Amino acid sequence: MIDELHEECGVMGIFNGENIVKNLAMGLYALQHRGQESAGIAAADGEKVRVSKSMGLVADLAEEGRLESIAENCFAAVGHVRYSTTGSRTLANAQPMLVSCKWGYLAVAHNGNITNAHELRAEMEANGHIFQSTSDSEVLLHEISRTKADNLPNAIRIAVQKFKGSFCLIFLTADSMYVIRDGYGFRPLCFGKRNNSWVFASESCAFDLLGVDYVRDVAPGEFLSINKSGVRQEQLIKKERKAFCIFEFVYFARPDSIIFEQSADKIRRKMGKKLAEESPVDADIIIPCPDSSTTAALGYAQASGIQFEIGILRNHYVGRTFIDPSQNVREQKVKLKFNTINGVLKDKKVCLVDDSIVRGTTLKIICKMLREAGAKEVHIRIASSPVKCPCYFGMDFPSPSELVANALGTAEVAKMLGVESLGYLSVDGMRQCTGAPEDFCGACFDGIYPEDFCHAGKTRCGEAT
Amino acid sequence: MIDELHEECGVMGIFNGENIVKNLAMGLYALQHRGQESAGIAAADGEKVRVSKSMGLVADLAEEGRLESIAENCFAAVGHVRYSTTGSRTLANAQPMLVSCKWGYLAVAHNGNITNAHELRAEMEANGHIFQSTSDSEVLLHEISRTKADNLPNAIRIAVQKFKGSFCLIFLTADSMYVIRDGYGFRPLCFGKRNNSWVFASESCAFDLLGVDYVRDVAPGEFLSINKSGVRQEQLIKKERKAFCIFEFVYFARPDSIIFEQSADKIRRKMGKKLAEESPVDADIIIPCPDSSTTAALGYAQASGIQFEIGILRNHYVGRTFIDPSQNVREQKVKLKFNTINGVLKDKKVCLVDDSIVRGTTLKIICKMLREAGAKEVHIRIASSPVKCPCYFGMDFPSPSELVANALGTAEVAKMLGVESLGYLSVDGMRQCTGAPEDFCGACFDGIYPEDFCHAGKTRCGEAT
Amino acid sequence: MIDELHEECGVMGIFNGENIVKNLAMGLYALQHRGQESAGIAAADGEKVRVSKSMGLVADLAEEGRLESIAENCFAAVGHVRYSTTGSRTLANAQPMLVSCKWGYLAVAHNGNITNAHELRAEMEANGHIFQSTSDSEVLLHEISRTKADNLPNAIRIAVQKFKGSFCLIFLTADSMYVIRDGYGFRPLCFGKRNNSWVFASESCAFDLLGVDYVRDVAPGEFLSINKSGVRQEQLIKKERKAFCIFEFVYFARPDSIIFEQSADKIRRKMGKKLAEESPVDADIIIPCPDSSTTAALGYAQASGIQFEIGILRNHYVGRTFIDPSQNVREQKVKLKFNTINGVLKDKKVCLVDDSIVRGTTLKIICKMLREAGAKEVHIRIASSPVKCPCYFGMDFPSPSELVANALGTAEVAKMLGVESLGYLSVDGMRQCTGAPEDFCGACFDGIYPEDFCHAGKTRCGEAT
Amino acid sequence: MIDELHEECGVMGIFNGENIVKNLAMGLYALQHRGQESAGIAAADGEKVRVSKSMGLVADLAEEGRLESIAENCFAAVGHVRYSTTGSRTLANAQPMLVSCKWGYLAVAHNGNITNAHELRAEMEANGHIFQSTSDSEVLLHEISRTKADNLPNAIRIAVQKFKGSFCLIFLTADSMYVIRDGYGFRPLCFGKRNNSWVFASESCAFDLLGVDYVRDVAPGEFLSINKSGVRQEQLIKKERKAFCIFEFVYFARPDSIIFEQSADKIRRKMGKKLAEESPVDADIIIPCPDSSTTAALGYAQASGIQFEIGILRNHYVGRTFIDPSQNVREQKVKLKFNTINGVLKDKKVCLVDDSIVRGTTLKIICKMLREAGAKEVHIRIASSPVKCPCYFGMDFPSPSELVANALGTAEVAKMLGVESLGYLSVDGMRQCTGAPEDFCGACFDGIYPEDFCHAGKTRCGEAT
Repeated sequence: MIDELHEECGVMGIFNGENIVKNLAMGLYALQHRGQESAGIAAADGEKVRVSKSMGLVADLAEEGRLESIAENCFAAVGHVRYSTTGSRTLANAQPMLVSCKWGYLAVAHNGNITNAHELRAEMEANGHIFQSTSDSEVLLHEISRTKADNLPNAIRIAVQKFKGSFCLIFLTADSMYVIRDGYGFRPLCFGKRNNSWVFASESCAFDLLGVDYVRDVAPGEFLSINKSGVRQEQLIKKERKAFCIFEFVYFARPDSIIFEQSADKIRRKMGKKLAEESPVDADIIIPCPDSSTTAALGYAQASGIQFEIGILRNHYVGRTFIDPSQNVREQKVKLKFNTINGVLKDKKVCLVDDSIVRGTTLKIICKMLREAGAKEVHIRIASSPVKCPCYFGMDFPSPSELVANALGTAEVAKMLGVESLGYLSVDGMRQCTGAPEDFCGACFDGIYPEDFCHAGKTRCGEAT
Repeated sequence: MIDELHEECGVMGIFNGENIVKNLAMGLYALQHRGQESAGIAAADGEKVRVSKSMGLVADLAEEGRLESIAENCFAAVGHVRYSTTGSRTLANAQPMLVSCKWGYLAVAHNGNITNAHELRAEMEANGHIFQSTSDSEVLLHEISRTKADNLPNAIRIAVQKFKGSFCLIFLTADSMYVIRDGYGFRPLCFGKRNNSWVFASESCAFDLLGVDYVRDVAPGEFLSINKSGVRQEQLIKKERKAFCIFEFVYFARPDSIIFEQSADKIRRKMGKKLAEESPVDADIIIPCPDSSTTAALGYAQASGIQFEIGILRNHYVGRTFIDPSQNVREQKVKLKFNTINGVLKDKKVCLVDDSIVRGTTLKIICKMLREAGAKEVHIRIASSPVKCPCYFGMDFPSPSELVANALGTAEVAKMLGVESLGYLSVDGMRQCTGAPEDFCGACFDGIYPEDFCHAGKTRCGEAT
Repeated sequence: MIDELHEECGVMGIFNGENIVKNLAMGLYALQHRGQESAGIAAADGEKVRVSKSMGLVADLAEEGRLESIAENCFAAVGHVRYSTTGSRTLANAQPMLVSCKWGYLAVAHNGNITNAHELRAEMEANGHIFQSTSDSEVLLHEISRTKADNLPNAIRIAVQKFKGSFCLIFLTADSMYVIRDGYGFRPLCFGKRNNSWVFASESCAFDLLGVDYVRDVAPGEFLSINKSGVRQEQLIKKERKAFCIFEFVYFARPDSIIFEQSADKIRRKMGKKLAEESPVDADIIIPCPDSSTTAALGYAQASGIQFEIGILRNHYVGRTFIDPSQNVREQKVKLKFNTINGVLKDKKVCLVDDSIVRGTTLKIICKMLREAGAKEVHIRIASSPVKCPCYFGMDFPSPSELVANALGTAEVAKMLGVESLGYLSVDGMRQCTGAPEDFCGACFDGIYPEDFCHAGKTRCGEAT
Repeated sequence: MIDELHEECGVMGIFNGENIVKNLAMGLYALQHRGQESAGIAAADGEKVRVSKSMGLVADLAEEGRLESIAENCFAAVGHVRYSTTGSRTLANAQPMLVSCKWGYLAVAHNGNITNAHELRAEMEANGHIFQSTSDSEVLLHEISRTKADNLPNAIRIAVQKFKGSFCLIFLTADSMYVIRDGYGFRPLCFGKRNNSWVFASESCAFDLLGVDYVRDVAPGEFLSINKSGVRQEQLIKKERKAFCIFEFVYFARPDSIIFEQSADKIRRKMGKKLAEESPVDADIIIPCPDSSTTAALGYAQASGIQFEIGILRNHYVGRTFIDPSQNVREQKVKLKFNTINGVLKDKKVCLVDDSIVRGTTLKIICKMLREAGAKEVHIRIASSPVKCPCYFGMDFPSPSELVANALGTAEVAKMLGVESLGYLSVDGMRQCTGAPEDFCGACFDGIYPEDFCHAGKTRCGEAT
């Protein structure tokens, strides 16, 4: 996807093993695509939990011996990479969040979005609680701490019943780890093992680097309590359906990851193939917009029998610094990142396969660049449906009014992009590719939410205020 | 004092005026001697409170435009410089602490030590509160937020009744400032005015730079509520006595400050004179240990008629980096900081006046250096009594077992230092110099605490566990 | 190429135009792949030349307003990105190098390697010159300054006759720019125009971002003198042959660049196709090692008719920090950078196309990873001949004893890699792909050097000491 | 002195001993007052010389293990602290400067000013030399390298004959150290020993910290060659007179230093006493402007019998950050640094003793502050004559037109300062205090230069162009 979307988090936890903090850092590095704003690790040594966090990348966190200070005697740790919206870019919101409560040290790494956090927070403030961040993770720590439970696992059991929305939570105390995933399973959470180590991560690509074997997903609603004595597993939350985020397959997850117990590459490939069926094209070459749509483009090329080519190159060096706000920023920004390979494109009927369409502004510039590189025709195929509705469960889309498909029909978008044709994958087509059409949430495409997302109980796009 | 003691904080607040954030930063710079670990400023613009904090000096805080981001539309601000004990040197403990509670934004800058913070915190944790720092300021914010009061000033009125110990507190909300000082008045808090600006600071030296006129102290137990409509003054806490910290006059306060409504220079000078009376010396020259004991040494010289000299030079450039832990650290550390002026000392009977004696280890090295510089005799006069007891009200002394006067009598200390004579100022003498002997706390010298300092109600040194 | 080789430099110059310094920075950003150790820009304003350099990436150079200080009134500038061998990683060696000489300010950006720099330097030292760096650029500035010429362009004309080896030089004085390329044309140097701007760069990809049109190469031996009055062109150095570096096409140049007046993508594609002819394979899929061998792999797949796939993923986030020297570094380093997409590889006969083979150590780990991912067979095809000899003209290869092909025959390398088959592209095949077989230097492959590379006049690999 | 003047350098060298680099860093720390812009150390290990330099303080240089990289096997090292005028604040000018020449590695640390450097450089440029800095140290390295001598010590012997002006030079090669001081002895250079270590430093205060015994000055014109075989001493340059810089005693040198073989404190004290003789005052108290004039003020107080007091306090924390260029900068800057102790000054006839007067602008603000603090009368006594002429030998004074004494007579300056009286020490008086009136240069006061300072052979102020 060209307009970069932002997953709000990646989480990881390791219980038992050697070099836990260092291994966790490497796992977070593999999850870096899920959040680049801040990174952090909390480590337990049996007596206390210590945390190290920093703004920026995991590599920044690992610099200057910061992690060594928390690694001593560590036998369990949780980590987090975070993206957040502008305005809240402060260390106060970085995770894992570590507090002291009646059960001692309690840290949490959270991926997801508690949709009723605002109401819970208002009620708690009225009851005398104070808040030091704008993060919903702070809300859930308060909620757990104020239950009347006799111990922490029971407090978690009680508190999570109050949370709406999406949550993959890994808690860490001085001696235990607790893992829980919301009942719908919106966001992915994998479980792996290596020798006596228990490992959890948003995506399985974090396992590969460490030689950890992927076992299965933490199931929706499943609650795992892990300590030196062993693991206790229970099905804590029961929902009538699953609601895996289909956008993880469309764009977010790394293709080498297993999420929702399926290979991201395989599903994404199917989407490309399905797109070729639903929306064929008369073109000389199929090109991806690197790197996110390469898999879908390969699928499209294979299904259509049209030649796959690399027609656009991406510069991976950091280039933000050069952007001069006084100029035509967007075009320059796109050109700093992408360049065309003219010999591949010249006098060709080019079909660009992209994974998704959101604002369409960047895609428009790319289309212009393709034309300037000598493409005879430019066709666009999107390996998903157009994004039309907000996500309340962890994706950071622009507001509905900025989504191009809300303002323009397909033909109008094609005209705006200045291309010969434009085709999408249908929502049904997307669902079929997953092999379990009913188990996925596609609300950003079709506006049908699996759960009410605000106190008014609305579950359809357009109802929301 | 040669063994550097650490005041735990300096606070400052400005309500109304121009360039408030910048002026506050300059005021904090004048208070820098009260804390060098972290600095911070919280600013209100009528709608919200924003905070900027950093580890290190006020100059670090002011760098890189950090303060500009909070200065916009600011009409009131509070600031803080902090020292803390090793182990809690984290930004999480830096002040002002800013939270959101049922009354909206609430920031606080705190100088002092809430002696029952631990008990209050334990009780609150039991009741479901969570804590993100080890600071007693977080405890008091919780306490205020959980009262059943109908508004914030009432909540403060109720909550402060629960706090034991010392506190000078400046609260800031989006539109108001609240100032309160504990009933004993342990720590200083000055009130000044310039045009329509209301200014508060730990010491009056923060006023001079800004052209603010010192008006008076915020009285012990006084509570001031300030907003755009005006100021409301009340006597909230009543104690049977005052307990101004006499150590502020002995060492901490800058000599150019007014604290406790008296000039620090004047009182410190009197202490030097009184010391000359109580403990005369047969010497050729009187020298101070720069810069803290210069005033007392001048007093001693004037009263005794012995010539005042500068025999020791202090290097003010930062030199910590050079300390090699594998060597005789302390001696090197002292020599990096101090050097003798041999021509002044050679063949002289030298009397070194120092402001206080704590561990005595640094003084021992200085005495050796004086001897090596050719001093014929070395006499030590301390312009206070020997520190023997812990302070529970905001001073960070070493543990009683490290205090040299607890292990050795005067003659033994003189022998340990290798000097011809040693003399102290009596506790009574110190008290008389203040002009109000009964109004001061001298517990670190005499072990008599004005208030019980722990839940067991102990008020005498040695009783504490 | 998996074992990363290091081009020693990228150069760029702009004469006339707007925002020259900023545009030059963006151009250098496009050339970043040619050097990541240091970056610098020298700018002329008609009266003086100022330089700004920093260790690290172009983005580091552009930070914190460093470039603004040299941009004022700038009408011409030269820039440089540099890689150098460990041990000389100091700012003293960063370029452009700026000196003052009898003709005033003189800056130079240099790509190449003066093979007789050592002899020239020794002679100059004997004659009383001093050197502040280990860079051959300093040698050539000395050489120019010590000629008896009556002006700078003549001095350059005289001095360059003494230089052996490869050099693309862009000189900048307060009012002029001089550009010269060695007579063999070892390294690429492109010339472009936009309106009245004259632009020079190692690769044309630096032009695209700026809307500059590629015109032609600066010809081997060509000397251009540019000032406000216009441009003077002359053929200064004449050699009996050309010797373009074929390794630029094999690996270094960006595929979207034109170098040596041909599209890098097109030549690299041909190499892939030629490889398929020379060394066919029985495989289910062709995969590249991203990103450098993607073009060659596409060519191989197209020529062979075997399906192209993405079987290896590359993580582009910075990850060096995690490398723990005490562990099996190389394997960890490879795994931090690459991961396999198991679904693509499982039970497949996989043919990995790589661009070149140097040490072979990284490739060995990749082969193991492919096997672990379930590949039934692993075949390696290298789109160049094995590197066997040192380069004296600007490439930084390991010493001959570290080059795998010097120690092992093809079958032995295959065995070492643990693969079913291994095939190379012949040197003749490579040369044919360029369309001008005689114009290229392939000394790193065949050991035949176009020019003697040391004072003993040796021109064949193995003769060198 | 209130308007801060800037000594251009401090130098230090150690030959033989343990922990040489670390000890040198500590010695430079003691010399920090002689230069705060950059610091550097070059170290020899018998085979090579390596250098580490950084902008800022010695503490910055010592950070992050930079010195460890050069300390290995070090048996000799030279160091430097530098101040330079704005515009040349770059690392390129930092010292020690290290070059490679026909005699191998050659580093130099230089304190002084070669007055004919410009002419030498112009001639060398004409002869084909290139320059990479604006430092006169680079000129002298060129000069040495281009001599026809048969070895380095002879080259130094020949080259220094060409240098005019002031120079204390410590050269370091891979195995030897060479020390030379100009024939007039403008700048101080001390020689000390500890066991088998030979130590050289601008001031003896650098010795005290290291337990090095001060032996004597390196004599004017003396040349010392030191290597493992021993030391060779010779009197290389002979001048008809000495010309020690009297301003070192007036202001620059630390009072605890021995320079020019006399105690700086003792001479400065005498100047204060002489001033009391020459220019008595009717005052209640004598106060210094801390810290530089404390010694002179003590002398004045002792001679006059008037009470010595501390009436002005100096804040030693870094405060530059707060200066807002849009405001009345100078006054704010002075107030950030100094504050009055009002109780000391109120209703008193105050005599402020300062060490020197240059621009007078800062002093004017101080006088105003004294008045605001309630001083009944303000008298100024300057323990030197007014600075009227430029220094060509290493001091950085403002241009003559900025020197207040060039524009105004004594009465007018008093009026400008707004004080009751103003008195200076006569040039004769100053000279007498040194005990060797003829051996000192007082050109900045009387305009009589011991040597022509430009090619026109001028030796009197006003003649210079």
